[in-house]
Amino acid sequence: MSASISPLAPKSLPEVPPVPGVSFATAEAGIRYKGRTDALLMAFAKGTTVAGVTTRSLCPSAPVEWCREALKKGKARGLVVNSGNANAFTGQKGRESTTLTAEIAARTLGCKPGEIFLASTGVIGEPLDATRFEGVMGEMAGRLEAGPWEAPARAIMTTDTFPKLATAQVPFGKTTVTIAGIAKGAGMIAPDMATMLSFVFTDAPIAAPVLQKLLDKLVVNSFNAVTIDGDTSTSDTLLMFATGAAKDVGAPQVKDDADPVLRPFRKALKEVLNNLAEQVARDGEGARKLVRVHVSGAVSKKSARRIAFSIANSPLVKTAVAGEDANWGRVVMAVGKAGEPADRDRLAISFGDIRVAAEGARDPSYDEGVVSDYMKGDVIDIRVDLGLGKGSDRVLTCDLTKEYVAINGDYRS
Amino acid sequence: MSASISPLAPKSLPEVPPVPGVSFATAEAGIRYKGRTDALLMAFAKGTTVAGVTTRSLCPSAPVEWCREALKKGKARGLVVNSGNANAFTGQKGRESTTLTAEIAARTLGCKPGEIFLASTGVIGEPLDATRFEGVMGEMAGRLEAGPWEAPARAIMTTDTFPKLATAQVPFGKTTVTIAGIAKGAGMIAPDMATMLSFVFTDAPIAAPVLQKLLDKLVVNSFNAVTIDGDTSTSDTLLMFATGAAKDVGAPQVKDDADPVLRPFRKALKEVLNNLAEQVARDGEGARKLVRVHVSGAVSKKSARRIAFSIANSPLVKTAVAGEDANWGRVVMAVGKAGEPADRDRLAISFGDIRVAAEGARDPSYDEGVVSDYMKGDVIDIRVDLGLGKGSDRVLTCDLTKEYVAINGDYRS
Repeated sequence: MSASISPLAPKSLPEVPPVPGVSFATAEAGIRYKGRTDALLMAFAKGTTVAGVTTRSLCPSAPVEWCREALKKGKARGLVVNSGNANAFTGQKGRESTTLTAEIAARTLGCKPGEIFLASTGVIGEPLDATRFEGVMGEMAGRLEAGPWEAPARAIMTTDTFPKLATAQVPFGKTTVTIAGIAKGAGMIAPDMATMLSFVFTDAPIAAPVLQKLLDKLVVNSFNAVTIDGDTSTSDTLLMFATGAAKDVGAPQVKDDADPVLRPFRKALKEVLNNLAEQVARDGEGARKLVRVHVSGAVSKKSARRIAFSIANSPLVKTAVAGEDANWGRVVMAVGKAGEPADRDRLAISFGDIRVAAEGARDPSYDEGVVSDYMKGDVIDIRVDLGLGKGSDRVLTCDLTKEYVAINGDYRS
Repeated sequence: MSASISPLAPKSLPEVPPVPGVSFATAEAGIRYKGRTDALLMAFAKGTTVAGVTTRSLCPSAPVEWCREALKKGKARGLVVNSGNANAFTGQKGRESTTLTAEIAARTLGCKPGEIFLASTGVIGEPLDATRFEGVMGEMAGRLEAGPWEAPARAIMTTDTFPKLATAQVPFGKTTVTIAGIAKGAGMIAPDMATMLSFVFTDAPIAAPVLQKLLDKLVVNSFNAVTIDGDTSTSDTLLMFATGAAKDVGAPQVKDDADPVLRPFRKALKEVLNNLAEQVARDGEGARKLVRVHVSGAVSKKSARRIAFSIANSPLVKTAVAGEDANWGRVVMAVGKAGEPADRDRLAISFGDIRVAAEGARDPSYDEGVVSDYMKGDVIDIRVDLGLGKGSDRVLTCDLTKEYVAINGDYRS
C-alpha cells in the first residue's frame, strides 16, 4: 500500500451532514489490516428503498451476487462492508459467508437477511471468515451514530490514499433533503463499474424503481467514465439508499421518475456522483496527474467513448503524461487502434487549449516549449477531434507511474 | 532507451547464412540516434517476389501506405528501413518523403519506385527528411554484401536491447533453401501486428500469392499472438521476400500453395516466425519475465484468444508477475472482464503445472511456498481452463516493471 496521500487529493474533506434515517459504526475486525478500521455496519430506518449497479464481470464476487438478489425487492435496513478481503472466487464457502454475514446483521438490526446489503473489497480468492463479524457486529450496533462521515469512508479503503466523500442539500418539494456519498477506488478500476465501492444516501422519499432509473442514467458519465488501468473488478458495487425520513418534514413521496419534484435532486445527485468518480480518478494507484480525455467529432457518442477509453487505457499515453511529455503521436496511435471510424487526415489533437496536431500532421504553430509548460500541471486535458460527426464524450483517468507498478508488484497487495 | 540487455535475451546470436539474391548495407544517417546505424538498404535479385502484412491501425504511417500499394504488384528489388523516425502522422510531407525515398532507392538500384519497399520506426509526428537518405543511399549501394546479418538486425532497432535474428535451412524439392529473418519490437506491441517491423528472406522460388497465403496463416500464432502493452503501432510491417535464386540449383518454382514441395518450408517458416515473435516478447520494454498465457476449454479459439489477451494485457496481472506473486485472483478478474463466455465455478487456473484454483475457489492442495518458488523463474506459464468447450489458444507477453514506465515516461522516447 502507498503510504503518502495522492497529490491530487482534495485540499480538505467536505462537511457531510447527518442523513436522517441513516446511522453507522465502524470497527477493527482484523480481517487483513492491523491498526485501522476494516468493517462498517450501517442501519437504515424502516421503509428505506434501495437501488444499485454492480460489476459486469462474468466472475462476480459472492457479495455482488447477494446484492443482485436483494435488489430485486428494493428494500434495505442494513449494509455491511469490509475491506481487506473481497470474498471473490471463494466458491461455496463464499456463498456461505455472505449468508452468514447477512443473518448476523439481520439478527442484530431486527430485520430480514434479504434487507441486508453486503460489499467486500480486498484480496481475491481468500476465504472470508464471516464469524469475524460475529464478534464486532453486536458491539457496533450498540454505538450506531449519524456521523462523522469520515469514519465509514475510511473503513472501506484499501489502497486508497484518502477517504472520498461528497454531499449536497437540495430542495425537494417544499422542504430540503440531504445527499451523502462515500466511495473507494484506487486500482482495478474500469467500467463497468469504475468504482469498486460507492454508497450514496438520502432522506428523500423515492421509490426503488425511480432510484434505479436515476442511478442507471447518472452512472454512465460518472463512475462508468473512469478508468485507472482498464482492469474491471469482480466486486464493483454502487448502492443508493433512500430512507424517506424527510416525509416527516413534508417531503412528498416520489413514485414517478418524471415527477418535477425530482429535477433539482437529479442535478445534485449527478454532481455528487461525478464528484466521487473524479476523486476515484484522483486517487488512481500511483497517480500524479488527473487526465481528462475529451473526444469530439466522432460518428456517435458510443464511438467517442471507445476512442476516449482507448486513449485513457493506453500505457504509452499514460506513461508519456507521467513524463510530462505531450506525446501526441501516442494519442494518434491510440485513436488508430480503437477500431472506430477515424480519418488520419482529419484528426486534430490538443493538450489543454494548445493545438498540437491538425489535418494529419503537426500543427504549423507547434511550440514544444509552450506545451511542455502545460504538461507540468496537475490536471491534463487531452482533446481529440475526429472531424467526422457529432459524437462526443469525456472520460477520466490518471497517469501511469512507477508507483503504480510498485503498489501492484509488491507481494500480494 | 534502456542501456542494458534484456535478461531474457538469447544467450548468443544465431549464425545466419547468406540468402542468395539478397545483399545489404547499413549506415549512420543521423536521423535521430548518434553513434549507431539507423539506415538499412537491401537489394534483391531480379524476379524477387514479395508478400506482407501491415498494421490494422486506422492511422497508418506513410511507409505502411506505400507498402500496401507496392504489395499489389508483388515484385521487389529493394527495401529501405530507417529507425529513429516513424514518418507517421506526417501528412502530405510524409507521403512526399516516402515517394522521394523510393525514387532515390530505385535510381540507385536501377529499378522502378514501385519495386522499393519502405519501413520506418521511431517517433511519430516528426517530419522525416528524406534527403538524409540521398547522402547515404549511393554510398550504401557501393558496399552491398550478403552478410553478416547482425548489421541489418541492429540498424532497425529502437528501444530494443538486442538484435533479433532467426534462420532455417530446409529441403525444397531436390535442393535446399535458406530462410533468414530479422525483427524489431520492444514496445507499442500488440496485435495486429505484434511486431513493429520484421523482414524475412528466402532464395526459394515462390509466387507472391503463395507467399501471401503462407504469411497470412503463420502470422496468427506468431506475431499476432504477442502483446507487450496492448498498444498497436501505426507502423507495424511484416514483409517476406523470395528471390528465387535457388532455381539455379534446381529448386522448383512454386505457384500453388497446395504444392507438396512447400511442406517442410512451411514448417520451417513457422518456426522462424514463432522464434522472432518470442524474441519480441523477450525484449518487451522493461521485461524481466516472459509470460505465456494458455487458455483452454473456451467455447471457441476466438473466445480463447480474447480471454488470453485480456489476461496478457492486464496491468494488474503483469505487475503481479513482476512482483513474483502468483496472484490468480487477478487472473480471475481478467477472465471476468473479457466479456467472453465464462463460468466462475468451472474455472481452473495453474501457474506452470501447479494448479492454484479450481471449481470457483482456491485449490484445496494450494501451497503458497511451492508456487512462489515457481514465480521466481524467467518464463511463467499461466494456464486457464474454462471447462466450457474445446477452444484453446496461447499468447505471449512479458511482465510490467518500473523499467517499462521509465523507458516510456522519459521525455519523448
